[in-house]
Amino acid sequence: MDLSEWRARIDALDQQLVDLLNQRMQYVLEIGKLKRENGKPVQDLERERAILEQLTTYNQGPLSTQAIEDLFTRIMQEARNLEEGQAQ
Amino acid sequence: MDLSEWRARIDALDQQLVDLLNQRMQYVLEIGKLKRENGKPVQDLERERAILEQLTTYNQGPLSTQAIEDLFTRIMQEARNLEEGQAQ
Repeated sequence: MDLSEWRARIDALDQQLVDLLNQRMQYVLEIGKLKRENGKPVQDLERERAILEQLTTYNQGPLSTQAIEDLFTRIMQEARNLEEGQAQ
Repeated sequence: MDLSEWRARIDALDQQLVDLLNQRMQYVLEIGKLKRENGKPVQDLERERAILEQLTTYNQGPLSTQAIEDLFTRIMQEARNLEEGQAQ
């Protein structure tokens, strides 16, 4: 494979990542709606910690444990930003 | 759907994200190898900017343009970290 073929693979994969990330946010917004309907607090730090632990255990690399933790912390932060926009 | 069902969906989706992110890094490492074999510089800021532009154009939300830019900047930073480990 030459450079342009590898790049085309990355471009296709990145679009899948954008789709999955947006889908994840849709799920998070549904969960927030459910929680608000039931008068429960939306944020759940214990659940966030459990997610990080599950995913770092699942991860086989080449990304490091630290990289997975950093990326998913960032993803969950974006989810909170969206939730806050939603709750207003 | 109840809370636990939404959470199970997020857990499955997050594992897909970990898989895709690791696959992306494999592709990046292949590209780096190709470039080094051909005596080309590995880092390409123009390509990184083009990726961000493509993906923010592709994005339909709910994630914002800014969120996509931030997340993919972080992902490409991790790719560079891996590249540097590889080049040593």
